[in-house]
Amino acid sequence: MRFTSEQRLDDTILEREFTLGDIPGFLWTPASASASAPVPLILLGHPPLGLGKMYPRLVGRARQAVADGFAAATIELPGSGDRPRLATVDQARADMRRAFQAGEPVGDETVDALILPLVEQAVPELRAAIDALLALPGIEGPVGYSGGVISIGIRLALVEPRVSAAVLFAGSFVPRVIHEEARRVTIPLHVLLQWDDEGNDRQAALDLFDAFGSEEKTLLASMGGHTGVPQSAGEDAARFLTRHLS
Amino acid sequence: MRFTSEQRLDDTILEREFTLGDIPGFLWTPASASASAPVPLILLGHPPLGLGKMYPRLVGRARQAVADGFAAATIELPGSGDRPRLATVDQARADMRRAFQAGEPVGDETVDALILPLVEQAVPELRAAIDALLALPGIEGPVGYSGGVISIGIRLALVEPRVSAAVLFAGSFVPRVIHEEARRVTIPLHVLLQWDDEGNDRQAALDLFDAFGSEEKTLLASMGGHTGVPQSAGEDAARFLTRHLS
Repeated sequence: MRFTSEQRLDDTILEREFTLGDIPGFLWTPASASASAPVPLILLGHPPLGLGKMYPRLVGRARQAVADGFAAATIELPGSGDRPRLATVDQARADMRRAFQAGEPVGDETVDALILPLVEQAVPELRAAIDALLALPGIEGPVGYSGGVISIGIRLALVEPRVSAAVLFAGSFVPRVIHEEARRVTIPLHVLLQWDDEGNDRQAALDLFDAFGSEEKTLLASMGGHTGVPQSAGEDAARFLTRHLS
Repeated sequence: MRFTSEQRLDDTILEREFTLGDIPGFLWTPASASASAPVPLILLGHPPLGLGKMYPRLVGRARQAVADGFAAATIELPGSGDRPRLATVDQARADMRRAFQAGEPVGDETVDALILPLVEQAVPELRAAIDALLALPGIEGPVGYSGGVISIGIRLALVEPRVSAAVLFAGSFVPRVIHEEARRVTIPLHVLLQWDDEGNDRQAALDLFDAFGSEEKTLLASMGGHTGVPQSAGEDAARFLTRHLS
C-alpha cells in the first residue's frame, strides 16, 4: 500500500489516496488518530461506476463513519474507473440492457456473467486491502462492510472472519450460488431495501433477506427508488455499525 | 378527566392515573413540565390484555418518550382490564383459538368480529382522550400514536387530524375494511415487523405495508417472535417520532 496524496478535509478528517498494487483507493481517518486509541475500520462498498463518479457520496459516508469513531476506506472495483475492463462483465451488462429494453426477463446466465467475475476478483482484493489497512498505525479490527454490490458483501461476510457486521443494499440480481452462500452467513446484518426500486425485484430481495443465516438481521424498507435512500436510513445504518463494531 | 393518583417515578417523570368517564388511563409528563414549554403528546397503544398486565412495558416506553421530550398517555381498551367485557369480541377470540388449535385458517368473519367492535369503540375514546389531554397545561400537539392493535392505529391515523405520525406493529388480523382504509392514510408511518411472528402472517403484513397511502413510510423487520422486538428497534421507533413530532 502506497499513499499518493494526503489532505485534511477539515479539522477532523485526514483523507489519503493510495494504491494497493494497481488498485486505487481512499482512506479516511480521524485527523488526530496518531494521538488517540486505534479505531475500527468500515469498508465502503459502491456500485461499479468508478471511484471518481462515486466520490461525493463516498466522502459523505466517510464523514459519518469518522464522526462515529471509525476509519473508512474504499477501493476501486475490478473493471471500473481507470482499471482494465472486464470483457465478460461488459458483455453481460450489454445483454442485460437489451433484455430490459425488450421487456424480457434477465436470465440466470446473464446475472452470473455480470456478477460472479466481479465477486471473484473483488473479494480477494478487499481482503488484501483489509490486510494492508489493519497494518497501519491507528486502525484495528473489527471490520464492518457497508453497501455496494450485495453479492460482494455476501461473499466477503462469508469468507472473511475479520468482517464482523455488514450493512447491505438489497438487490435482486444475485447469482444462485451467492443466494446459497447467504444461508451460511452468520454475522449481524442490516439490509436496506428501497420499496419501489426500479432496478430490483422486491420479492427477490425479501427472499434473500429471509435466506440469510444470521441470527441478528434487520431489514429497513423505505419508500422511493434505487438512489432515494432517506437520510434517516443512512443514520440508522451508521448506528447499526456503531452498535456492532464499537 | 379526573386525576386519581400522582407519583414521581424519579426526579424527571410525573406519573398520574386518571379516569375519563369510566375509562382508566395513565399520563406521564416531565416532572418540570409546569415550568417549561409545552410538549407534544404520544399515545401509547397496547394489546387488549389490560393496563395492569401491560404496565411494566408501558412505563418503559413512557420513560423513553418523556426522555425524548414528550408527554405519554394510554387508556384502557374497551373490554379489557376492569372494563365491561365485549361479548362479541370474547366469542370471536374463542372462535379464533378453536381455529388455531384445529389448524384451520381464521375466517374473515371471525377477524371482523374480533377487531371491528374494538376499533369502533376505541377510536372515539382515544379522540376524547386527545381532547382532554391537549386541554391540560404543559401538553400540546402534534400527537403521535405508537403500537398496539394495528387496526386501531390505522383508523385513528385516518380520522384524527391531530395525529401526525404513527409507529405501528405489523399484524395480519386486519379486517378488509381496515385494509382499505390503510390506502387512505397519508401521515408518516414507521411499521415494525417481527419476521418470525408466530401469530401473524408475514406476507399479509407486507401487503398491508404496501397498501398504506403515506408518501413517507418505513418498515423495520427484525428477527424473532411477537414479543421479541429488539431494543434497537424501539430506539429507532422513538427517533422516528422525535423526527416527526418535535
